Amino acid sequence: MKKTMVIAGLGLIGGSLAMALRGFEGYEIVGVDIDPATLAFAAAHGAGDRVTGGAAQAVKEASIVFLCLHPAGILRFLEEHRGDFSPGTLVADVCGVKTAIMDAAEALPHGIDFIGCHPMAGKETSGIQSAEAGLFQGAHFIITPRRESKPEHVALLERLAAYIGCRDVVNTTPERHDAIIAYTSQVMHILAVAVCDDPELFACKGFEGGSFRDCTRVAALDVPLWTQLFSMNTPALTKVIARLEDHLRAYREVLESGDIEGLTRKLADSSERKRRMNLE
Amino acid sequence: MKKTMVIAGLGLIGGSLAMALRGFEGYEIVGVDIDPATLAFAAAHGAGDRVTGGAAQAVKEASIVFLCLHPAGILRFLEEHRGDFSPGTLVADVCGVKTAIMDAAEALPHGIDFIGCHPMAGKETSGIQSAEAGLFQGAHFIITPRRESKPEHVALLERLAAYIGCRDVVNTTPERHDAIIAYTSQVMHILAVAVCDDPELFACKGFEGGSFRDCTRVAALDVPLWTQLFSMNTPALTKVIARLEDHLRAYREVLESGDIEGLTRKLADSSERKRRMNLE
Repeated sequence: MKKTMVIAGLGLIGGSLAMALRGFEGYEIVGVDIDPATLAFAAAHGAGDRVTGGAAQAVKEASIVFLCLHPAGILRFLEEHRGDFSPGTLVADVCGVKTAIMDAAEALPHGIDFIGCHPMAGKETSGIQSAEAGLFQGAHFIITPRRESKPEHVALLERLAAYIGCRDVVNTTPERHDAIIAYTSQVMHILAVAVCDDPELFACKGFEGGSFRDCTRVAALDVPLWTQLFSMNTPALTKVIARLEDHLRAYREVLESGDIEGLTRKLADSSERKRRMNLE
Repeated sequence: MKKTMVIAGLGLIGGSLAMALRGFEGYEIVGVDIDPATLAFAAAHGAGDRVTGGAAQAVKEASIVFLCLHPAGILRFLEEHRGDFSPGTLVADVCGVKTAIMDAAEALPHGIDFIGCHPMAGKETSGIQSAEAGLFQGAHFIITPRRESKPEHVALLERLAAYIGCRDVVNTTPERHDAIIAYTSQVMHILAVAVCDDPELFACKGFEGGSFRDCTRVAALDVPLWTQLFSMNTPALTKVIARLEDHLRAYREVLESGDIEGLTRKLADSSERKRRMNLE
């Protein structure tokens, strides 16, 4: 019997995954979405070997199900389809928060192996129209297995991550993931939108260089998605924002004091930290 | 007689300029630096038609002199060589602050035309080893002429900017330049180093994605250069930092309040600003 992998939710990540996974270890890749236009686009652009709107039937036939919906959509899908998964199915997700998702997955029947995943890839546009098979090239692939997750499922995800071009697989806990991601991803998005709140934004055309374009690149974000991601990780996120406010204030204060030596020391220290991180 | 253009200071910007300007309107491009190793590297890599350590002589023979030193180096050069410029010479600089430089240039003898320039290009490494002819491709080229600057000198800089690949020439005042650049460039660098001050920096390897790499790219900065740039623009810079602290705190507070609708509205507003800026 043909092995089947379902990709549920054909947005930027799900669509890219369905494209990138074609040919992986003989699996038939089945793209699932509720939107007919998305399904048509996916079928026309090779996102999966076939597509369908029938999630329940597809899930029943699958040995692997990847949930690529928004966080709230994943919670809803798990609830709606908890009875549809076949025994032994590996269920995974690609969501940017892990604790809330892993908690919800506890309600799955015994024998369904749920492993949280987070490929650290994306772009500033969303939807299947932005999907591309190369999206995951060079990205970290973070996984948060349960203690009882099957080693062969972890090994399969490692091969899958390599197949789609990820540079490595980082195995961690949901709590650790959420604490660190608040810093490396969520605050970068908060920063980008906060920079765009400046009253000078529209006056600055013609004066922007690479650093401004890079920092604000992700500011035109998917509002419902990021509202959910931020809301599901508020305690960790607000802690990191508060720390960043402190570090910015420290720079402002040393500038206001006119202490050039102090400013030099601070810049030397921060830039050295950056250089050191790259070397480790 | 051959027209001569001197590029004084063969670092990242000066070296790139000396490479990019070769062949421009028949000028002989002469690279000047005090460091013999830099001169040797410049000569071997086509930074200018010839190089020399003799700044005074080179300046005397030049009809255009581009000062590509650190801000304090530019102030020193103007003082040391004020008597060396030939009458009618166009003197320009490429420095990231303009008011302090334009003020110092007031001391030049009558008949020397000083026009401030700021090509909005750079990279996260410095020195002639990082120089490349393509550095200015697509960058804005900002100029701050004096009221009495000769129109033919402004026109020449416009042709020069186009020759090295800049996308446009933005003509403004030194004060306006410094106020806007505090936002579009200087705060981006303060942000990058402040993000690297987070105690989790070294724990985050394996969890970083594109947004983190982009935001911290410029953090490994040239400490003496940026100490000078920040110190020469402190009032404008601290104002922008304070505004950014406010905007970050506003995001933190709406998150802490648990007001999901308020968070959605804020994200919709900021991301819409970003989209609007791109379209204008």
